[in-house]
Amino acid sequence: MIPERARAILDQVASGQLSPAAALAQLAIEPFESLEYATVDHHRALRQGYPEVIFGAGKTAEQVVGIAERIASRGDGFLVTRVEVVAQVALLDTFPGVRVNPVARTAFLAGTQRAQSGRGEVLVITAGTSDLPVAEEASETVMALGGEVRRVTDVGVAGIHRLLSRSAELRDARVIIVVAGMDGALPSVVGGLVACPVIAVPTSVGYGAAFGGIAPLLTALNSCAAGVTVVNIDNGFGAAVAASRILSAL
Amino acid sequence: MIPERARAILDQVASGQLSPAAALAQLAIEPFESLEYATVDHHRALRQGYPEVIFGAGKTAEQVVGIAERIASRGDGFLVTRVEVVAQVALLDTFPGVRVNPVARTAFLAGTQRAQSGRGEVLVITAGTSDLPVAEEASETVMALGGEVRRVTDVGVAGIHRLLSRSAELRDARVIIVVAGMDGALPSVVGGLVACPVIAVPTSVGYGAAFGGIAPLLTALNSCAAGVTVVNIDNGFGAAVAASRILSAL
Amino acid sequence: MIPERARAILDQVASGQLSPAAALAQLAIEPFESLEYATVDHHRALRQGYPEVIFGAGKTAEQVVGIAERIASRGDGFLVTRVEVVAQVALLDTFPGVRVNPVARTAFLAGTQRAQSGRGEVLVITAGTSDLPVAEEASETVMALGGEVRRVTDVGVAGIHRLLSRSAELRDARVIIVVAGMDGALPSVVGGLVACPVIAVPTSVGYGAAFGGIAPLLTALNSCAAGVTVVNIDNGFGAAVAASRILSAL
Amino acid sequence: MIPERARAILDQVASGQLSPAAALAQLAIEPFESLEYATVDHHRALRQGYPEVIFGAGKTAEQVVGIAERIASRGDGFLVTRVEVVAQVALLDTFPGVRVNPVARTAFLAGTQRAQSGRGEVLVITAGTSDLPVAEEASETVMALGGEVRRVTDVGVAGIHRLLSRSAELRDARVIIVVAGMDGALPSVVGGLVACPVIAVPTSVGYGAAFGGIAPLLTALNSCAAGVTVVNIDNGFGAAVAASRILSAL
Amino acid sequence: MIPERARAILDQVASGQLSPAAALAQLAIEPFESLEYATVDHHRALRQGYPEVIFGAGKTAEQVVGIAERIASRGDGFLVTRVEVVAQVALLDTFPGVRVNPVARTAFLAGTQRAQSGRGEVLVITAGTSDLPVAEEASETVMALGGEVRRVTDVGVAGIHRLLSRSAELRDARVIIVVAGMDGALPSVVGGLVACPVIAVPTSVGYGAAFGGIAPLLTALNSCAAGVTVVNIDNGFGAAVAASRILSAL
Amino acid sequence: MIPERARAILDQVASGQLSPAAALAQLAIEPFESLEYATVDHHRALRQGYPEVIFGAGKTAEQVVGIAERIASRGDGFLVTRVEVVAQVALLDTFPGVRVNPVARTAFLAGTQRAQSGRGEVLVITAGTSDLPVAEEASETVMALGGEVRRVTDVGVAGIHRLLSRSAELRDARVIIVVAGMDGALPSVVGGLVACPVIAVPTSVGYGAAFGGIAPLLTALNSCAAGVTVVNIDNGFGAAVAASRILSAL
Amino acid sequence: MIPERARAILDQVASGQLSPAAALAQLAIEPFESLEYATVDHHRALRQGYPEVIFGAGKTAEQVVGIAERIASRGDGFLVTRVEVVAQVALLDTFPGVRVNPVARTAFLAGTQRAQSGRGEVLVITAGTSDLPVAEEASETVMALGGEVRRVTDVGVAGIHRLLSRSAELRDARVIIVVAGMDGALPSVVGGLVACPVIAVPTSVGYGAAFGGIAPLLTALNSCAAGVTVVNIDNGFGAAVAASRILSAL
Amino acid sequence: MIPERARAILDQVASGQLSPAAALAQLAIEPFESLEYATVDHHRALRQGYPEVIFGAGKTAEQVVGIAERIASRGDGFLVTRVEVVAQVALLDTFPGVRVNPVARTAFLAGTQRAQSGRGEVLVITAGTSDLPVAEEASETVMALGGEVRRVTDVGVAGIHRLLSRSAELRDARVIIVVAGMDGALPSVVGGLVACPVIAVPTSVGYGAAFGGIAPLLTALNSCAAGVTVVNIDNGFGAAVAASRILSAL
Repeated sequence: MIPERARAILDQVASGQLSPAAALAQLAIEPFESLEYATVDHHRALRQGYPEVIFGAGKTAEQVVGIAERIASRGDGFLVTRVEVVAQVALLDTFPGVRVNPVARTAFLAGTQRAQSGRGEVLVITAGTSDLPVAEEASETVMALGGEVRRVTDVGVAGIHRLLSRSAELRDARVIIVVAGMDGALPSVVGGLVACPVIAVPTSVGYGAAFGGIAPLLTALNSCAAGVTVVNIDNGFGAAVAASRILSAL
Repeated sequence: MIPERARAILDQVASGQLSPAAALAQLAIEPFESLEYATVDHHRALRQGYPEVIFGAGKTAEQVVGIAERIASRGDGFLVTRVEVVAQVALLDTFPGVRVNPVARTAFLAGTQRAQSGRGEVLVITAGTSDLPVAEEASETVMALGGEVRRVTDVGVAGIHRLLSRSAELRDARVIIVVAGMDGALPSVVGGLVACPVIAVPTSVGYGAAFGGIAPLLTALNSCAAGVTVVNIDNGFGAAVAASRILSAL
Repeated sequence: MIPERARAILDQVASGQLSPAAALAQLAIEPFESLEYATVDHHRALRQGYPEVIFGAGKTAEQVVGIAERIASRGDGFLVTRVEVVAQVALLDTFPGVRVNPVARTAFLAGTQRAQSGRGEVLVITAGTSDLPVAEEASETVMALGGEVRRVTDVGVAGIHRLLSRSAELRDARVIIVVAGMDGALPSVVGGLVACPVIAVPTSVGYGAAFGGIAPLLTALNSCAAGVTVVNIDNGFGAAVAASRILSAL
Repeated sequence: MIPERARAILDQVASGQLSPAAALAQLAIEPFESLEYATVDHHRALRQGYPEVIFGAGKTAEQVVGIAERIASRGDGFLVTRVEVVAQVALLDTFPGVRVNPVARTAFLAGTQRAQSGRGEVLVITAGTSDLPVAEEASETVMALGGEVRRVTDVGVAGIHRLLSRSAELRDARVIIVVAGMDGALPSVVGGLVACPVIAVPTSVGYGAAFGGIAPLLTALNSCAAGVTVVNIDNGFGAAVAASRILSAL
Repeated sequence: MIPERARAILDQVASGQLSPAAALAQLAIEPFESLEYATVDHHRALRQGYPEVIFGAGKTAEQVVGIAERIASRGDGFLVTRVEVVAQVALLDTFPGVRVNPVARTAFLAGTQRAQSGRGEVLVITAGTSDLPVAEEASETVMALGGEVRRVTDVGVAGIHRLLSRSAELRDARVIIVVAGMDGALPSVVGGLVACPVIAVPTSVGYGAAFGGIAPLLTALNSCAAGVTVVNIDNGFGAAVAASRILSAL
Repeated sequence: MIPERARAILDQVASGQLSPAAALAQLAIEPFESLEYATVDHHRALRQGYPEVIFGAGKTAEQVVGIAERIASRGDGFLVTRVEVVAQVALLDTFPGVRVNPVARTAFLAGTQRAQSGRGEVLVITAGTSDLPVAEEASETVMALGGEVRRVTDVGVAGIHRLLSRSAELRDARVIIVVAGMDGALPSVVGGLVACPVIAVPTSVGYGAAFGGIAPLLTALNSCAAGVTVVNIDNGFGAAVAASRILSAL
Repeated sequence: MIPERARAILDQVASGQLSPAAALAQLAIEPFESLEYATVDHHRALRQGYPEVIFGAGKTAEQVVGIAERIASRGDGFLVTRVEVVAQVALLDTFPGVRVNPVARTAFLAGTQRAQSGRGEVLVITAGTSDLPVAEEASETVMALGGEVRRVTDVGVAGIHRLLSRSAELRDARVIIVVAGMDGALPSVVGGLVACPVIAVPTSVGYGAAFGGIAPLLTALNSCAAGVTVVNIDNGFGAAVAASRILSAL
Repeated sequence: MIPERARAILDQVASGQLSPAAALAQLAIEPFESLEYATVDHHRALRQGYPEVIFGAGKTAEQVVGIAERIASRGDGFLVTRVEVVAQVALLDTFPGVRVNPVARTAFLAGTQRAQSGRGEVLVITAGTSDLPVAEEASETVMALGGEVRRVTDVGVAGIHRLLSRSAELRDARVIIVVAGMDGALPSVVGGLVACPVIAVPTSVGYGAAFGGIAPLLTALNSCAAGVTVVNIDNGFGAAVAASRILSAL
């Protein structure tokens, strides 16, 4: 993994075969090998026991299983997102320990070196039951990245008391992911109730002027509760990684 | 205003100068004169004591005053909307009894035959203070059309308890107009709290991805509280007329 | 259903076990239980005999029937909207008294305690025959909520006399729902002919620059007839609930 | 104006200096000079007595007058569109016979060889008074191109009887231009009432969800009356040229 | 078809049973019956021998054949547009004289009283072969409405000489329909070459930033050749009706 | 601030004047007073020493100063955002200790009870110098909320080495705000280089197809670096609050 | 192919049967025949050994093979783009020497007179593996037009070091095509690293706010690296032709 | 400019003070200093004699002059784009040799080490006179970067012969920039006439459905002439840099 070529140059300097000036010039010509080393090192620190992530959409069951086997064979774990039913079954057949969540459309296998747990809990709040697949994708991703998840489901603003009756849980949360389609009003209300980080995931739930998620996306971006941040439509995975970045920073 | 020509035809039938068949043919050729009569009559019934409405935007102070004088001279009242400051002053100078609301940018003069009052009360709820001009336009219009107004201001969803503390007023309302810009989440929450008609007015308050009111417009159209209806961006006047249509139907 | 905990606190105050100040503090910590009670009570008042509504889109026949059975088992009625053909058949098999409307894609079962009828009539006007499914969804919803419906079909503005020949019915209406796709011009014309509340439902009927209903949506929002309100594209259900809110307020 | 070079080549062929094959090759290299001659000739035939058109927007009064003087000096007429007030005054000062229409923002000077009149009449219908500038631009352009104009103003669909009372004029028209902003519903209604060509001009009149004319543009493109054609937003000039193309073809 | 009730009122006036004033009032109450008469008469004049038009999209073969049989049974002709293959076959089976154009997806049966022919010729120009279905729909409609058609195909602007080589045909045309997708540049070029009416039909041919026809639609609306008019995306039928309106006016 | 009415009810229960059941019913009718108490308490905990925020856009200097004086008079601090030059001067005149940042268009006065500092540092990265006002608004807000700020300016991706040369600072950051207009590519690159939370602020810097910030907004939402979150266009304030929420959670 | 008619006119001039002036007039009347000659000649020069291109989308296997056979029968080569699997197989069956690339969805048969090779190399850079089909279409097109291709795959900006480690290849390239979906940030980074022409191809890879490629399209158009040019979404073919135009100009 | 720190490390290796392994680790920690060196070197090669570019929009005359003076003081040249009139005058006052083009809104001062000329000519074609400012910006930039410019102005497709008459110039061009607003049809026509690289610059010229340049932008992106590339709306500068990249590669 150590760039042999950079080492060789430095060895030549040490042995006097190469002047420092010449070495500098040579390193400048191919400066990225040294970077690559830094990168890998950095990534390892970053991903400490993290699973690799496979984006399952548009991949055949064979392709998904093939990639997963390559990862698992070196002892690493994997998380597959947006994995279709056929591939879910194939993964269950291939990996005894795999955890498949059909609502989230995810499959997760822990690596031999697990992510350290105890990083804290993420509260995943869902406006309606139709938003569940995205919320579950977020939840599975949080767990795959070593976090814990608490769920509050079906507390959309049309019946605001459902949300308010859970206010104790909201106040206790360290990071909140709010998943909402249609009018997407829930993140604003939640953002006004709590002081912790709130990540909004607009979903494509709705029809007509929901425009496949544009409506709740704009609602979240214009939240009158300050400090609510937003990820792409239906991007439960991204919200979970953002939450995990926060948990890691804690 | 009565179509002389239609009357003349009928007179000719009465006097035998014209056969009924010929009269029918002739009326068919110009059938709309008779309609015009119906229209006027219908409109009078509809507007019983209503003021005429002048859309002030893009009109000079002279034009506004000129039109207003023509209306007032026949004893009718008027409501000017979107009237600029110069025209506001000119109206105050010309009509002693005029009521100018500079926030609403409206001017109202009651006609000699007032609209019957007592039609009931409209509750006008405002998310933020920046939405006040639109809310005031709605309020002034309701009053000009013979209704009464109660205001609940600055109860946006970022501090949901501000709204909930006013829940008694919400429950007592017969018709509610909800004025909200930015995320436009308030109509959904209100729609879930009350059983009465709720009319949402998205406003152009906001910046960036608020897109001049598109964000709250889409939010309102996708309200997860069923039965919320929507008018054009910043259209406080239209919301008030819609509310007045409901009050009239009561 | 009564919050036992709130009652227990109050009992303790009554018996002197708890000071009023301590009770206040305790109630403030968990203030939403009391709310929940209010909510339920309020909702009951609101929904007096209303059926529960199941959004059928994206649900399997089994899921729809399962939810419907749970509701029916406690004597309540239900309305299923956007219910697919297979689920329609399954509902017909399961509930002898169910009313299935295949054009509206709705299924309705009255509860043992029916909504009071006689709330008045809603006039549902349709621009073209392709708009019928949305109009029928509106009609079935109005009826499920205890209202009556009169239909005027295929009176789009391209042949304006078809509409004008029904003017007596328009003038008699207490609330009008106007369903129109393509150019969506009908709500403006109707709004100019009547003084009662007019609710526009733009539909996704059309092609090309109709953009799945954006064209008639914008037309309705910009109606030159003041006081026309609008719901989401194809949202016959929402228009009916809005009409029912008005009928209830009458 | 005759391409000297093409003539020279042909002279060389005639004199035997150049073989036909060599001439052909040479003409193929620069074939467009001959075209230019055709073009001019064609355009002259096409424009027979037409004024030249100057787009006044973004031009100073000096520039407008300068161009106008160059045209007028060779006996041709001109039509200036979108001409600002200062340039209007400057044109009035410079050309005694010029006809300035401040509402249309046009200035017209007839050429010494007038366009033949008697080409027939165009009916210009306007939904609201705010649409008048566009309607007047259309009217002035029709007249500058040798047609006649009849105006029907302020007959928007919110008061449909205003339009219907003018039905005789509609039926007599040979070509109709319909100018409408806001909901833009008027072209559909007119298109359903008449059999002659109907050209819709959406205008930028309106606010909020009118989106600077997008709403009436979409309405016109989706007209449920078949055979209505559309020009750009506020393009009264273009509608008039289209009408004039039709009159010319008659 | 003659409004019996209007006749009865007039008879009463003639016999002195009803005063002209009372008759006028009564006619004003139900003014549209007389209109209906006018409408029918007017439409008959307008459609003189025209076929009825059935929009085939979204209709089953049975529905299409059913409607067509009802029309044919009273001796009228019909034109079906957007008719699917199954319905095409069904129509061929049912009506021996029907003309089915599978590219245009149209079926036409002439009525016993044919539209007068000889109304003149429409030139239908197509940018690319993918635009042919729309061009053929236009062509079939023109013919069904009694016009004649000349076709110029595959002369898009990427090879401008293909178009220019047909310039004689362009100059001879009385009305031109230009069908173009992708960049939609052809209508502008054609509009600059001819003086006759030019109707642009943008098509949904293209991908990516063609946005289903928005790109060529905008191109046509912004044509730098003055007087080009536009219909909806893929609306070959509408362009043909517009052309037919012009031919009728000639 | 303690809801007197709730206390009174409880006192009545304590004194036996009111039964617990009656008290419960009464509390249910006005349940939100108790909430308000909770709310205030919660907000105080949440905002511990935070300044109040005044949105300066659209407010006169007098209004801004007036509000600021009311806040300062009770010993609290304030942060004014989007404050115009005139109001900046007025604030400097009125409050000796105020800190005005003309690039950020902010004014800040610390309260007597300062926010606890030492909450950690936020790294604010700017793509171009035109993005500075937004970046400075973010920086000033972070500082007003008790955080510290480090700035890395003008390191847009067109010269990627400018960013990479600052990689040590990036790796050390606990929270990063990335401010970028035009192509908005910087957040993706930063998100790939670090493991900490990254908040993207798209700006309205750019022209043409930047569409006032839509381009960088979409870029950020589609970041191929997982876990980047986004706030509204130009919303430096919101990004800072989001960063502060994270710092508070640490 | 030589316009016989133009030759005949010139022959008549040569033989004195026609005066040069008369010939000129006649040539002006039908000027485009001569153009056609020029066109063909010009195109031949332009396409020197180029294959003909068949757009396979929406064409049946029979149609594709039929067109291909017609071209191949006269010794020319062809390139089919967007060719479906069935047609790929049919082409393999029909043409022994055809080169089918299933990822690129292209099929290529060299003509008997090959395009001269050695025109230089195009570097095709791909952000992610999902962008490969578009990159491969570009690569196959470059090769079919006589160029050579070097590929750098999966070097998206989320891991910027992957790109930087290939900087030597970037610096050596004469023309670079950058294929990127999602955030589309790669072209900006590449444009800042090299001085050669850079052509961006946004792809429809992504979901939600990627809007089918609009996000990376806008990113590329707003590239903060000056001089990056853009082609349509997914248009690998167009980028390759643009690259080939540059190679030809070299 | 040489990174002293990197040199020091290498010196330590050479002197045996540091082992190659330790040096490698240290270089990996701060790897970008070495890159910076490469960058600068690379940029110098790239920009060989190029002027620095100042984006004048939003900068005061003082700021523009200040930056320009700093550049000029070290003997380099500069190009200011989008420079307002006041700054133009200030630059003329300050730099005797500066070349100001008020139409292009550019100011150029050659450096003491001029860019090598003779790089070839760019043909800048303009559709209409309103597109001139963008075309001139392109022209001035090409010249500032050492190229030459030939202009063909006002040859929009509405009069296609104007373009065709210049075909010789088109065929001779090595690179063509086509500047067009409104329908933006010109790039497609030009792209079909020539084999050289064609760069389209859509402009914001137009009104209504031109949408500030979106219409010609989409037209260019969907060009039916293969291989036309596009830059941002009004981005004459970017097109010139792209052309210059091509000339440099020649």
